[in-house]
Amino acid sequence: MPIYNFSAGPAMLPPEVITQIQAELPSLANSGMSILEISHRTKLFENILNTAKADLRALLNISSDYEILFMQGGGTAQFAAVPLNLVTHSKKIAFIDSGYWSMRAIQEAQTLGFTTAILASSQKQNYTNIPKLDISTPLDDYAYLHLTTNSTIEGLSIHAIPNNLKIPLVADMSSNFLAEPYNINDFDLVYAGAQKNLGPAGVSVVIIKKRLLVSYSNITSVMNYHLTAQKNSMFNTPPVFAIYTVGLVLKWLKAQGGVAAIYEKNLKKAQLLYQFIDNSKFYTNNINKKDRSLTNITFTTGSSSLDEKVIQAATAAGCLNLKGHRSFGGLRASLYNAMPLEGVLALIDFLTTFEENNR
Amino acid sequence: MPIYNFSAGPAMLPPEVITQIQAELPSLANSGMSILEISHRTKLFENILNTAKADLRALLNISSDYEILFMQGGGTAQFAAVPLNLVTHSKKIAFIDSGYWSMRAIQEAQTLGFTTAILASSQKQNYTNIPKLDISTPLDDYAYLHLTTNSTIEGLSIHAIPNNLKIPLVADMSSNFLAEPYNINDFDLVYAGAQKNLGPAGVSVVIIKKRLLVSYSNITSVMNYHLTAQKNSMFNTPPVFAIYTVGLVLKWLKAQGGVAAIYEKNLKKAQLLYQFIDNSKFYTNNINKKDRSLTNITFTTGSSSLDEKVIQAATAAGCLNLKGHRSFGGLRASLYNAMPLEGVLALIDFLTTFEENNR
Repeated sequence: MPIYNFSAGPAMLPPEVITQIQAELPSLANSGMSILEISHRTKLFENILNTAKADLRALLNISSDYEILFMQGGGTAQFAAVPLNLVTHSKKIAFIDSGYWSMRAIQEAQTLGFTTAILASSQKQNYTNIPKLDISTPLDDYAYLHLTTNSTIEGLSIHAIPNNLKIPLVADMSSNFLAEPYNINDFDLVYAGAQKNLGPAGVSVVIIKKRLLVSYSNITSVMNYHLTAQKNSMFNTPPVFAIYTVGLVLKWLKAQGGVAAIYEKNLKKAQLLYQFIDNSKFYTNNINKKDRSLTNITFTTGSSSLDEKVIQAATAAGCLNLKGHRSFGGLRASLYNAMPLEGVLALIDFLTTFEENNR
Repeated sequence: MPIYNFSAGPAMLPPEVITQIQAELPSLANSGMSILEISHRTKLFENILNTAKADLRALLNISSDYEILFMQGGGTAQFAAVPLNLVTHSKKIAFIDSGYWSMRAIQEAQTLGFTTAILASSQKQNYTNIPKLDISTPLDDYAYLHLTTNSTIEGLSIHAIPNNLKIPLVADMSSNFLAEPYNINDFDLVYAGAQKNLGPAGVSVVIIKKRLLVSYSNITSVMNYHLTAQKNSMFNTPPVFAIYTVGLVLKWLKAQGGVAAIYEKNLKKAQLLYQFIDNSKFYTNNINKKDRSLTNITFTTGSSSLDEKVIQAATAAGCLNLKGHRSFGGLRASLYNAMPLEGVLALIDFLTTFEENNR
C-alpha cells in the first residue's frame, strides 16, 4: 500500500531526495565522511551552501539587491529576529492578521517590547477570508508591514501582494514558499522555515534587501542579519545537514521545471480536492474561494467525532496526518510540492468511500 | 584505506549510528515516513525525544532537580540565552577565561549589554594552562560564574571543578560533554552543542537546575528556558532529525558501557598521543600537563609551512582535518568518543613516518 503523508510540517519530502541522502550518507562525494561529520569550514560544505543559495536565487529570480541567509530555527525564531533587526527609532510594527501564525508573530514582537498595530484582521470572520488592507492608511509611523502569505492552520493565502506601500514589506512565507510564484521584488524581506516545502526542521531561509542589512551592536549574534550576511551564514556552526538537504530539494525543484511548473501541478492538485469537497454534501470547506490555500486544505464533516473517524480510517488506508491543528480542529490535507498527484487522487478515493460508508 | 576524521566539530560520529540512520531513513519504525518527514507532534517523535532525555539522565546520573532541554543552535546561541535567562537585578557576570571560546561567551554577554568581569584568565600565558580562581573572591555581585570545561581550540580542560561558590556555576561543556565524567551536581547549568560528542550540528543540550527556571516575559521565545521546559522542548518545531541522531548516539554510548567506560578509552587514546608527542623531538605540545585536554590535542612542528605539509600528507594517508583553528594555527587532533583507538594508532604511525622523512 502506498503511503501519503499529508502532514502540515515537518512534511513530505521528494522520495528522490530521501534516496539520495540515504545513498550519500556514509561518504559524501567520496570524502570518506558523512554529511553529519563534515566541518562547515570545508570547501565541500562551502560549495553545498553556495550552490543552494545560487539555486534558490535562480528559482525565485532573486536580484542582486537581496542577500540570502540560512538561519537556525524556524518561523518562531524569525518572529523575533525581524523586529530586532528592522525596528529603529522606536517605530511601531504594522501587521495584517490572517490567522494563528500571524498572531504568533505579533505576540512575539510584543514579548520583546515592540509596539504593534493590526491594520487588517479577519479574526472576527474566523479567518475564513484574507482581510483587506485599506491602502489609504498612513504608514509613516511603522518600521514595516508584516504579513503571512499562507495561513497553514486555517488554509488561506494572500495571492495578491499589496504594493507601493512606502514602508518595507515583510512576509512569513513558510508554508507556501516555492509553491506559488510570488515576485520577490514585491517584498523587502521574506522568511520561511524549511520544514514545509524546503527541507527538514532546523533551518530557515531569509531573503532580505541588502539596504536593510544595518549593523546593530546589541542583537543576539545568532539573530543578527548583518552579521549572518557578513559571514555567509557561518558566523557560528550552521545546521550543516539541514542546509545540505535544502540544497537537494532545490535541485529536485529545478529538475521539476522550477516554481512555475510546480505551481501548475499544485493548482491542479488543489483544484481537484477543492472541487471534490465543494461537490460533496458530506465534507465542507468554508474559506472564501479566492483566498483558498493551495498548500493547506482544511475541511470537516461538521462533526468532531466523525472527523476523528475519518482520520483513523485514512491512516489505515495510507493517507496519514489528516488531523487539523490542535488549536483549530477538523481535517487538513497539506499538499506541498513533494505530494504527487497520485496522493491527492488516493485521498479523494478514500474520502469518497468513507462518505459512501458513513453518510 | 581506512579514513579517520580528526575534525574538531562537526566531528566523527559512531559508524554504527550512521549505519542505523541510513537503514531507517526511508521509513522510521515502519511508519512509511522518513525521520525527516515526521511531525514533532506525533507519539513516535515524542517517544524519541523523551527516550533521549531519559538516556542522557541515566548516562550522567542527572537528578530530578535538573531539567533537560533541547534547543536549536549551538554554543553561540547559548552564550546569549544563559545571561538572558539568568541575570536578574542588574547583577554582573563572572567568567573564568581559559581560551577563545570563553572569550566568545564573554563578548556575546557584552553585546547584549551585560556587565562582565573576568575573575581568572590565562590569556597572558597564551592559554597554555587553566587559570586559578582565587576562591576568596567575593561573588555576591555576580549572577553566576561561567566557565568552559574544555577549550577546543587551545586544547586544555578544567578537570577539577570549583565548588562551594555560593552563586550558580554555569559550564559550556560543548567539547568534552560525555567524554569525561563530570558530576552534574557540581553545576547549576551545563550546556553543550551537539556537534562534538553528541550528534550533528543544529541542536544543543541544556541541563538546568529547576529552581533557575524562572518565568520571564521579555525573552525571545526560542531562547526562553522556562518556556522550553514547560513545553518539553517543543514550543515550536524542534530540530527533529538532530534530536533523533542525538538519541542514537546516546544509545550507542550506553552500549559502550557509559561515560566511565568511554572515559577509560579516551584517557588511553589521549595518553598514547601525548606520550608520542612528548617523546618526539619533532612535534611539541606546550599545554601544562595537568590541564591537557583529552578531546582536542594541539601540537606543532614549530614551522607553519611544515605543519601545512603534515596536514597535506596526513590527508593523503587518511588522517583528515588535522589543521588547527584558523585563529590559532598549528595542528590539532580531536579524539572525541567516536574516534576508535585504531584511529589514534594510525595517526601516530603517520606522524612517525612523516618525522622520519622530514626531520
